[in-house]
Amino acid sequence: MDFQIDWDRESRTGVPEAVFCARKSAAQIEAIIGLAHAASRRLLFTRLGQAEHAALSRPSTALLDYEPLSSTAILGGIADLTADGVGIVAAGTSDLSVAREAARTLAFAGHGAPVIADVGVAGLWRLMDRIEEIRKFRVLIAVAGMEGALFSVLAGLVSAPVIAVPTSVGYGVANGGTTALHAALASCAPGLVVVNIDNGYGAASAAMKMLAAASR
Amino acid sequence: MDFQIDWDRESRTGVPEAVFCARKSAAQIEAIIGLAHAASRRLLFTRLGQAEHAALSRPSTALLDYEPLSSTAILGGIADLTADGVGIVAAGTSDLSVAREAARTLAFAGHGAPVIADVGVAGLWRLMDRIEEIRKFRVLIAVAGMEGALFSVLAGLVSAPVIAVPTSVGYGVANGGTTALHAALASCAPGLVVVNIDNGYGAASAAMKMLAAASR
Amino acid sequence: MDFQIDWDRESRTGVPEAVFCARKSAAQIEAIIGLAHAASRRLLFTRLGQAEHAALSRPSTALLDYEPLSSTAILGGIADLTADGVGIVAAGTSDLSVAREAARTLAFAGHGAPVIADVGVAGLWRLMDRIEEIRKFRVLIAVAGMEGALFSVLAGLVSAPVIAVPTSVGYGVANGGTTALHAALASCAPGLVVVNIDNGYGAASAAMKMLAAASR
Amino acid sequence: MDFQIDWDRESRTGVPEAVFCARKSAAQIEAIIGLAHAASRRLLFTRLGQAEHAALSRPSTALLDYEPLSSTAILGGIADLTADGVGIVAAGTSDLSVAREAARTLAFAGHGAPVIADVGVAGLWRLMDRIEEIRKFRVLIAVAGMEGALFSVLAGLVSAPVIAVPTSVGYGVANGGTTALHAALASCAPGLVVVNIDNGYGAASAAMKMLAAASR
Amino acid sequence: MDFQIDWDRESRTGVPEAVFCARKSAAQIEAIIGLAHAASRRLLFTRLGQAEHAALSRPSTALLDYEPLSSTAILGGIADLTADGVGIVAAGTSDLSVAREAARTLAFAGHGAPVIADVGVAGLWRLMDRIEEIRKFRVLIAVAGMEGALFSVLAGLVSAPVIAVPTSVGYGVANGGTTALHAALASCAPGLVVVNIDNGYGAASAAMKMLAAASR
Amino acid sequence: MDFQIDWDRESRTGVPEAVFCARKSAAQIEAIIGLAHAASRRLLFTRLGQAEHAALSRPSTALLDYEPLSSTAILGGIADLTADGVGIVAAGTSDLSVAREAARTLAFAGHGAPVIADVGVAGLWRLMDRIEEIRKFRVLIAVAGMEGALFSVLAGLVSAPVIAVPTSVGYGVANGGTTALHAALASCAPGLVVVNIDNGYGAASAAMKMLAAASR
Amino acid sequence: MDFQIDWDRESRTGVPEAVFCARKSAAQIEAIIGLAHAASRRLLFTRLGQAEHAALSRPSTALLDYEPLSSTAILGGIADLTADGVGIVAAGTSDLSVAREAARTLAFAGHGAPVIADVGVAGLWRLMDRIEEIRKFRVLIAVAGMEGALFSVLAGLVSAPVIAVPTSVGYGVANGGTTALHAALASCAPGLVVVNIDNGYGAASAAMKMLAAASR
Amino acid sequence: MDFQIDWDRESRTGVPEAVFCARKSAAQIEAIIGLAHAASRRLLFTRLGQAEHAALSRPSTALLDYEPLSSTAILGGIADLTADGVGIVAAGTSDLSVAREAARTLAFAGHGAPVIADVGVAGLWRLMDRIEEIRKFRVLIAVAGMEGALFSVLAGLVSAPVIAVPTSVGYGVANGGTTALHAALASCAPGLVVVNIDNGYGAASAAMKMLAAASR
Repeated sequence: MDFQIDWDRESRTGVPEAVFCARKSAAQIEAIIGLAHAASRRLLFTRLGQAEHAALSRPSTALLDYEPLSSTAILGGIADLTADGVGIVAAGTSDLSVAREAARTLAFAGHGAPVIADVGVAGLWRLMDRIEEIRKFRVLIAVAGMEGALFSVLAGLVSAPVIAVPTSVGYGVANGGTTALHAALASCAPGLVVVNIDNGYGAASAAMKMLAAASR
Repeated sequence: MDFQIDWDRESRTGVPEAVFCARKSAAQIEAIIGLAHAASRRLLFTRLGQAEHAALSRPSTALLDYEPLSSTAILGGIADLTADGVGIVAAGTSDLSVAREAARTLAFAGHGAPVIADVGVAGLWRLMDRIEEIRKFRVLIAVAGMEGALFSVLAGLVSAPVIAVPTSVGYGVANGGTTALHAALASCAPGLVVVNIDNGYGAASAAMKMLAAASR
Repeated sequence: MDFQIDWDRESRTGVPEAVFCARKSAAQIEAIIGLAHAASRRLLFTRLGQAEHAALSRPSTALLDYEPLSSTAILGGIADLTADGVGIVAAGTSDLSVAREAARTLAFAGHGAPVIADVGVAGLWRLMDRIEEIRKFRVLIAVAGMEGALFSVLAGLVSAPVIAVPTSVGYGVANGGTTALHAALASCAPGLVVVNIDNGYGAASAAMKMLAAASR
Repeated sequence: MDFQIDWDRESRTGVPEAVFCARKSAAQIEAIIGLAHAASRRLLFTRLGQAEHAALSRPSTALLDYEPLSSTAILGGIADLTADGVGIVAAGTSDLSVAREAARTLAFAGHGAPVIADVGVAGLWRLMDRIEEIRKFRVLIAVAGMEGALFSVLAGLVSAPVIAVPTSVGYGVANGGTTALHAALASCAPGLVVVNIDNGYGAASAAMKMLAAASR
Repeated sequence: MDFQIDWDRESRTGVPEAVFCARKSAAQIEAIIGLAHAASRRLLFTRLGQAEHAALSRPSTALLDYEPLSSTAILGGIADLTADGVGIVAAGTSDLSVAREAARTLAFAGHGAPVIADVGVAGLWRLMDRIEEIRKFRVLIAVAGMEGALFSVLAGLVSAPVIAVPTSVGYGVANGGTTALHAALASCAPGLVVVNIDNGYGAASAAMKMLAAASR
Repeated sequence: MDFQIDWDRESRTGVPEAVFCARKSAAQIEAIIGLAHAASRRLLFTRLGQAEHAALSRPSTALLDYEPLSSTAILGGIADLTADGVGIVAAGTSDLSVAREAARTLAFAGHGAPVIADVGVAGLWRLMDRIEEIRKFRVLIAVAGMEGALFSVLAGLVSAPVIAVPTSVGYGVANGGTTALHAALASCAPGLVVVNIDNGYGAASAAMKMLAAASR
Repeated sequence: MDFQIDWDRESRTGVPEAVFCARKSAAQIEAIIGLAHAASRRLLFTRLGQAEHAALSRPSTALLDYEPLSSTAILGGIADLTADGVGIVAAGTSDLSVAREAARTLAFAGHGAPVIADVGVAGLWRLMDRIEEIRKFRVLIAVAGMEGALFSVLAGLVSAPVIAVPTSVGYGVANGGTTALHAALASCAPGLVVVNIDNGYGAASAAMKMLAAASR
Repeated sequence: MDFQIDWDRESRTGVPEAVFCARKSAAQIEAIIGLAHAASRRLLFTRLGQAEHAALSRPSTALLDYEPLSSTAILGGIADLTADGVGIVAAGTSDLSVAREAARTLAFAGHGAPVIADVGVAGLWRLMDRIEEIRKFRVLIAVAGMEGALFSVLAGLVSAPVIAVPTSVGYGVANGGTTALHAALASCAPGLVVVNIDNGYGAASAAMKMLAAASR
């Protein structure tokens, strides 16, 4: 088995390569860890569940900084973080795993991004209590499931671009995140952009590209 | 052609019979007008478009109180209206035709219900400016298309039951009202109930049943 | 981990806060129990499966009144119930878990609501045998899966508002409750309102708001 | 242009060949009329709208017995009808065009089948008033749109096989007949069988095959 | 827990009551067995998987004639079967469980119905080899998954009514039986009627009603 | 307005460039005709309806060989055709427009391909009558709508690769060609490949690539 | 009729208010023009089709700068444009109307953004010929219909954030833009964000917010 | 249990019979192995997972050449392979199981087909590095999940026919392979043909028929 890790992706696109572990075996993941370690490369692993992490060998896990909540692991450590303007807003407790995937992806690349949670709009005062703090960010990532009403309300209150991450939280017509996704896309709040359901990694990547655009 | 008009529906269910004109020919509608007129009965006609109304004979239209915006007609006149606690809130100008269908249905049964429009949550201040007024109603009908975020925000702010009427306003993933419908159903704001897309008549009927429940 | 429990929801919206356990860990649920217990607050827990309940610590479960059929738990006990006009009608035995979620939510708030089960319309005599009893309620919750024909028949027979709760009972085109949901929404029986699939809690919340509307 | 009319279909399958006109040009339909007329064959034409019928030449229309309501035409006349046990039940006035397509197909083959209309279950008394009459048929065709609750109620009340024809009557989630179709298929009323949306011709064909099965 | 078993269903509709076990607990099923046994009633149980059957108590299973392939159990034994004209045709080996559910339902009611398997139309000679045998039946049940092409081919070759049972066999766009279901409904082969996906019980019920129609 | 016509597509991919006219204005189409005429290039135009063709100027239409049935036009004439092994099989008369789009695309590139029509499998003898003729082709294009059963039957009878073109012929669950498309994809007949609904052009392009593969 | 134009939207969110004309009558649009003209405000009108534009009165149209291709009108003129780093890339000629809606929205706010068209990836050389030019932009808007492959390829080649605008160009499974939308969302090219189908206005709004983020 | 193995399929259609194990029990699979072994026939088994393979008896597994990655087993050995022009291109590591199912099917029939992996278009240089090698094949199988952009890019670069196999790799709107499937079908790259999601066997079968067409 040989892998083509795209080490140049960061220089080409501004976003570092990451390893999506969802369908990979322990053997495949360990092979990639070995490859990166031998080349003294840092790597981010996403969608690495607790059972899958536990199935890795001791020497492999010893190399990783693993966070169960976000199912992410980082090889090669995290440098000091710079708070350069990205904020993450999550509607409910159940959306935290996706919000943390975004935060960890940003941290891997050196960006410190606080998570402001439990501000779903069914209790609007929770969002309004923190809106001044939220308005200070240059780029916002909004994470919400169910009906995704947070996206429209938030985008109408701030001047930063808002990246909506619909989550698969909910049941019945929430339909695995589809309703929140469609709500984000159909919103009439301008300047709202959207990534795939549960895609915290993608939202963080987009946020980094937006920050980079600012410095060109 | 003979029709079975359910004259006893009102006494049985508390909601007066109405004639849904969408697939009926001018001849069929005129026959029903004749029947009701002969029996000295009042009747509400819904989904009677301007072209279809214009296709009716002069003597028929002379009997009708027709409103183009809501595509409704009333035979037998409207009595004095009682403002007994139903309010209608509409997100945007394009939702007014559905909001008016609800208002006309309520008016036909003697209930006066004001329409508060242009309070979509992408500009939240518009809703907050009028929230005290809205909180005074005993039953609320909320009308919104696109992503339907109004439903969640509103239901979290008031103690009245909220009847959501998703509308087919929007394009792309708004999908003929399906996204607004799903947003209303998937909302975590408690006490929110939902009717079919564009069904202002049904929302008004439910509101009347709720008022009637109060007086039993 | 800190949680923002919305203790004021009840005074603001008339519906008490509940904890939706579906994606929460035992640790998270126990933290919430501790928080509420320390504050001498009552709390309702929904979607707490038997395995998840069994995973809680003894001190925690000792505080809870748990009902396996409805997957609900109540912290702080149930007061004497008042039978103030809400009735719950369930089509089949398989719909009982959802019907009981509604009944427990009402009980938590002090409302006694009997469940009338096994009245699906494929054997119409079963419904007709009990229709006089059903007609006496001021607000009805109807629970049905598969094709959801009960909703239309029931709403045509009573003057109370009917809250339809479609359930995920069925297979093939029943499609996880979608057919029953669509049947409730597409019904021409007026005064029928709908909540999300399997959402007994939401139906009970709406019923409480309707009762409250009556006393304003 | 040459056509392969399946003149032997009736002897092979018990159902006469019919010409589905929906996508055929006037020229194509006239060619088929000419072919059948020359061969002294009778033919049934379905989905022949009024505009399309008006576009045919005078000599052609002179040969046809055309019924606008059902969009059917018969070449070669109708023999005396035998009332041999098929009944057609339609929920509402808007379902009559489909019910008549079934009746005309049966008539073309010599079967007299009465249409019992306006017996939708939202006003259950309308159905119950006529249930004894309906119970006498050997095979029933039930025609309904919107939520299609009639199918379940009817199939639970009779011993005849019930052929459900969902119609595209309705709006919003009625979704062009899909909800009525799914309701018929998901029903727990046993002995209910289903054909495509608006397919009155197919239901009549199936009814004829059931009658024929009886005489073998 | 009390159950309303519809003992009169057979006299009312010609189809015996059956117990759908899919969401019932062992305790519920045993209670029903006890009830029927005490009343000396025969009963058919469907969707009783091997694990669920194994979870029943010994005294209960001793009363049942259980068939794992069809997941059916019969309480009270099977009488001598009469071969009165129903045939079952199955496209592939994987469709046999559904075909057997139909056969067992018929057997419970005293009808002997042979299953002709492995006649999928991708190898047309397999069907043609047995077509004369198939043509002799008065009523046919056809069972097929994947693309469901068997339904159209078969219905074009026989004069008996054909009841299509789409199965959930297949993957990808087969979509849990939806493609086979739609293929059966969209077929232009006349006289084809359809039941829900995997619903062998429903097809057998319909076949019995068709046989009964013949003897009235 | 300037266009980038891909004149080198044929040398690069073996398939000549064609102009898809569906959303182009008369002005745009005439500009392309002018460009190609000036460069002495031949061009194929697809989806050019009769009204759109009639809207072109006289000098433009004079340059085109237009066929209404297939909505195609050819600029620069057709050379002598070589019958090199492609056959087109169409289920019904309504599928002919798509079948002819394929035939015209092949003709534009010099391949003669006969269309064998009206061989839908609901009357299987029609296909079997011509199967020996069909078996002689090296590559087959099969065109069918509704339930698309022709694809499976045909692919099981021949050794040539079969390219399925589902058509939008049908109504109700035929769903604009989706059921025929899914039937082709879910078929267990091996060697069946599929193109988009109504895409006769794409099927012809694939057939040409298959012929070309043979000569490498 | 009174309208609440959100004149402060620009200062609050960085995006100017626009009037979506799709469901508005000529009278409503003229009223808005009058309101804005009287207040000496500039306004952007989107989705104003040629027929709808022609239906406005002469004095109204005299005030507007109308562009048929993008169905946009501007009241109050366009200032000198600044080329500050936004580029628009369109896959095909048919995508130009959406690309121009984005360009006009940007122009209204003073940003000059060139449109690079006809670079669909089925002829990859067309994109590669212009990639160096494309790489110079700070923010990219990509417009594509059908299968939307351009989004993935482009996002993998540049370091700017890419805003995907799926268009409704295509037929069959292209499904009104849904396939292009899903392709953009499911892409593994990082930093790709998405707006609703055909929503050029939304993409431009997001691009402006990204530019503004850069200057904070 | 008796099985009708279609031993003549190869001579009739050019594609050898294979056994799809997905819903078969160990007993059924062993019976087929026994049957084929007794008749000295070779057989290919697909969708035989590792657990299912481990459940077979030792004597049975001793007869099989099993490959876990592709879930395929071969009875009767593989002859020397001929590299006669089929190439397999896979977008990512996760697509390898499907690519290998195609390769094993081809190997079973004697065709050697190399797999070129990790050439997804989000890093276009990976594909371009190997394009000359890829252009040499006479028939190409392309395997990709998520947004399936590889299909369009590849088909625009080569003259061989391209058989697209969408895979179920991805999450959210990737929707079990549906987005990749639709992207392949909606592509404007001519000469692209498609098989069912994850259907490596079908793609290989089609490739063999294309090779055979070349030698006729």
